[in-house]
Amino acid sequence: MISSKLIMSNFAMHISLDTREAAYVQSLLQQRKVKKNEQVLSSGEKCRNIYFVGEGCLRIYHTDQLGNEHNISFCSENWWAVDMSSFSRQIPAFYSISALEESTLFYLDYPKLEELYEQVPKFERFFRILTQNGFNLYQQRFTSSLSKTAEERYLQFQKQYPKLEQRIAQKHIASYLGITPVFLSRLRKRI
Amino acid sequence: MISSKLIMSNFAMHISLDTREAAYVQSLLQQRKVKKNEQVLSSGEKCRNIYFVGEGCLRIYHTDQLGNEHNISFCSENWWAVDMSSFSRQIPAFYSISALEESTLFYLDYPKLEELYEQVPKFERFFRILTQNGFNLYQQRFTSSLSKTAEERYLQFQKQYPKLEQRIAQKHIASYLGITPVFLSRLRKRI
Repeated sequence: MISSKLIMSNFAMHISLDTREAAYVQSLLQQRKVKKNEQVLSSGEKCRNIYFVGEGCLRIYHTDQLGNEHNISFCSENWWAVDMSSFSRQIPAFYSISALEESTLFYLDYPKLEELYEQVPKFERFFRILTQNGFNLYQQRFTSSLSKTAEERYLQFQKQYPKLEQRIAQKHIASYLGITPVFLSRLRKRI
Repeated sequence: MISSKLIMSNFAMHISLDTREAAYVQSLLQQRKVKKNEQVLSSGEKCRNIYFVGEGCLRIYHTDQLGNEHNISFCSENWWAVDMSSFSRQIPAFYSISALEESTLFYLDYPKLEELYEQVPKFERFFRILTQNGFNLYQQRFTSSLSKTAEERYLQFQKQYPKLEQRIAQKHIASYLGITPVFLSRLRKRI
């Protein structure tokens, strides 16, 4: 078990909780350890939980019809991970989530989060702002895929995820950028 | 002036308002008519308002360094339009918004929306769910750009925006799909 300090300070970024509310959300939070390469969610399953990464790193990816995996985002310490569409509607997931490193996750399942919204409505605000930030991220990422070169996208990745580059395999970064590992290695030498 | 019936029923999709709350939000809503091709937001400006399309159709787009415009999304009746990053942080906009048709917009400016959150917290819930849906949309759109063919993206566009194809110029649909108008016209003949 790791301390809930990181997730509690994540909440504090957008809402302030009194002692009772803090204790209540802590009573709802669950914790889980996953090994490197362990599957957290497989596409087709229902995404039952919204995860917060306390330690380690996850990746969210899509497997296309040819079996190629496309990394959509990386979630290291202090990030949230979820297939939002699957979780919010409780329908089968489009994305998969797996661990790039041994990780410790906090999570809330769907009924617990709904209960939390009801009992402490300021969590509506927290998750509204969190979702807004995720929305901004994807909007930017999508726009980059339309109008930025691979080199610009690589520099953006480095800015977005400082220090992550040393922790994860080249092939995962290449997949995130939509280029081959060979091309990524050439890019790195050039910059 | 058009009636606020459409926007009120849009709110009712996710929250239920009593008479007093409904009257209050209506007192905050402003209305604006824009002509075809009129600019609603230009990149670099602060996005001061979140818009709801009562009549007509907007497009959200990005202009790249070469001056090419990339349509990010279309917003017809009953859709919301905003540069979320600019609006939520009150920083200069990355995107631009303009009218594809003469349109009537309802809007809330940033201080009025913050006031609304404070006075009627259930709007946190409404905008949380709205943002979640937008998040899902962009996540899917981004994933499609990585792993779907132009033909598949075209079919997805038709499904996403039923009846819109007849209303807007081919060049705008082509820009949305990330293909040339010539290629779009070939695609249409083939399908």
